[in-house]
Amino acid sequence: MGRGRLGARPGGAGSGQQRARGLPEAGEAVTASQRLAELGIELPDVVPPVASYTPAVRQGDVVYTAGQLPLVAGALLHTGKVGDGDGLVSEADAHAAARVAALNAVAAAASAAGGVDNIARVVKVVGFVASEATFTGQPRVINGASDVLQEIFGDAGVHARSAVGVAVLPMDAPVEVELIVEVTTP
Amino acid sequence: MGRGRLGARPGGAGSGQQRARGLPEAGEAVTASQRLAELGIELPDVVPPVASYTPAVRQGDVVYTAGQLPLVAGALLHTGKVGDGDGLVSEADAHAAARVAALNAVAAAASAAGGVDNIARVVKVVGFVASEATFTGQPRVINGASDVLQEIFGDAGVHARSAVGVAVLPMDAPVEVELIVEVTTP
Amino acid sequence: MGRGRLGARPGGAGSGQQRARGLPEAGEAVTASQRLAELGIELPDVVPPVASYTPAVRQGDVVYTAGQLPLVAGALLHTGKVGDGDGLVSEADAHAAARVAALNAVAAAASAAGGVDNIARVVKVVGFVASEATFTGQPRVINGASDVLQEIFGDAGVHARSAVGVAVLPMDAPVEVELIVEVTTP
Repeated sequence: MGRGRLGARPGGAGSGQQRARGLPEAGEAVTASQRLAELGIELPDVVPPVASYTPAVRQGDVVYTAGQLPLVAGALLHTGKVGDGDGLVSEADAHAAARVAALNAVAAAASAAGGVDNIARVVKVVGFVASEATFTGQPRVINGASDVLQEIFGDAGVHARSAVGVAVLPMDAPVEVELIVEVTTP
Repeated sequence: MGRGRLGARPGGAGSGQQRARGLPEAGEAVTASQRLAELGIELPDVVPPVASYTPAVRQGDVVYTAGQLPLVAGALLHTGKVGDGDGLVSEADAHAAARVAALNAVAAAASAAGGVDNIARVVKVVGFVASEATFTGQPRVINGASDVLQEIFGDAGVHARSAVGVAVLPMDAPVEVELIVEVTTP
Repeated sequence: MGRGRLGARPGGAGSGQQRARGLPEAGEAVTASQRLAELGIELPDVVPPVASYTPAVRQGDVVYTAGQLPLVAGALLHTGKVGDGDGLVSEADAHAAARVAALNAVAAAASAAGGVDNIARVVKVVGFVASEATFTGQPRVINGASDVLQEIFGDAGVHARSAVGVAVLPMDAPVEVELIVEVTTP
């Protein structure tokens, strides 16, 4: 589980940084909204569904999100299939897209949870990567989602995950990310 | 959530129609079996699994269905990949297939729930669309599933959803639909 | 549900074999670890995640595993897409790979459950098969996973399941298997 610890990643919201900026010491709770502020991330508005469904549903202590695309203000950050070669989305761009899709998923989950600080932990992530037939780096792409979840939620952001390469995604998006999160009962 | 309200869709089981046919007024509970009768839909028999599994499993208050194909009396409604062009399944035919797959999924969920009226709400839908590489209309295809769920369950049929385009599906089906539903404890 | 009964499959841990080897009679509980011993299966070590996630997460009475590849001692049992033809993974090899991936998934679930005997039942399996465009035998491939789960857990191993054919999988694996299991509260 060490991968999810604060400070375990270069550039993450490490405990050293937290002390330097006056955030809580080890042992004190750091909320997701404090980490978002620390990271300079503003959660996006919930993306309206592109069809007949809703962005997230709560069932008991669990929230399921809809599959989220890398939409920024209504436009896809990148389009196309991921791979090496002309006309394909690079792995680096796909990684950035996975991060955006994950932020949209957090916004969706937060809306059903009554706020991001009611998300107790991230349980499961499924990341679909629209993949050219020879591209096998789906795990590195979906790390764009996994890493930002751990930046926001710390240890509680460490999740089980599946990453698969699919033929094509809605709107020709390169990635689609869905979450299952546990929420606190307010 | 307005998309899921009764009467919000053309052709849906609107409140006006309900009054005209003597169904309950607003504020009275309408059961799923009443809506099925209103819609003239008879749930199919549960499709026997095509392999070593069972159509649906209950865990606590949740039922998970197996992925359901658009089988009618044992035969696929359509076969092939979805897209524009010769030899492909049209978007309209795929939409119809998604509706059939969703009805099979409701039948499977109902069998594990002890009846369709024990389904308290639809939580999550995943729709896989066997897609030609340039087809990006998976959300419109899977609306065939989402819309019939809302026709049957009203607001309780509004769900989180992922739609993805995959390479190929069992038996060369154009779509596969799986559900997570919440059930009442009888 | 008959498919999941002990003794229903050739080569399974049937009740006749159990009696012959001194295992419990019908009506006595047989644990998963007893069945593993009977089957001569040693659960593998948990496969370290190939990226920023953890092998399994418990939420309430449920454990979700990460998608598991057919890794044996760190190497894939087979690589490539499944289909008929030169350079493709045969259905038989893919079936064997699905069995290995499922054992890795059981090991992951057991680690989060505090031991394999705390797995009360298998709820859901999703099996992704990297498929050549004309290969439609995904259910037969994923039976390699489903059958070993029923060998280990008996009736409690019978699950809901989705099998889909995807474009390509991480590390060029032919299959990826994820589980949702119910665990007993110790």
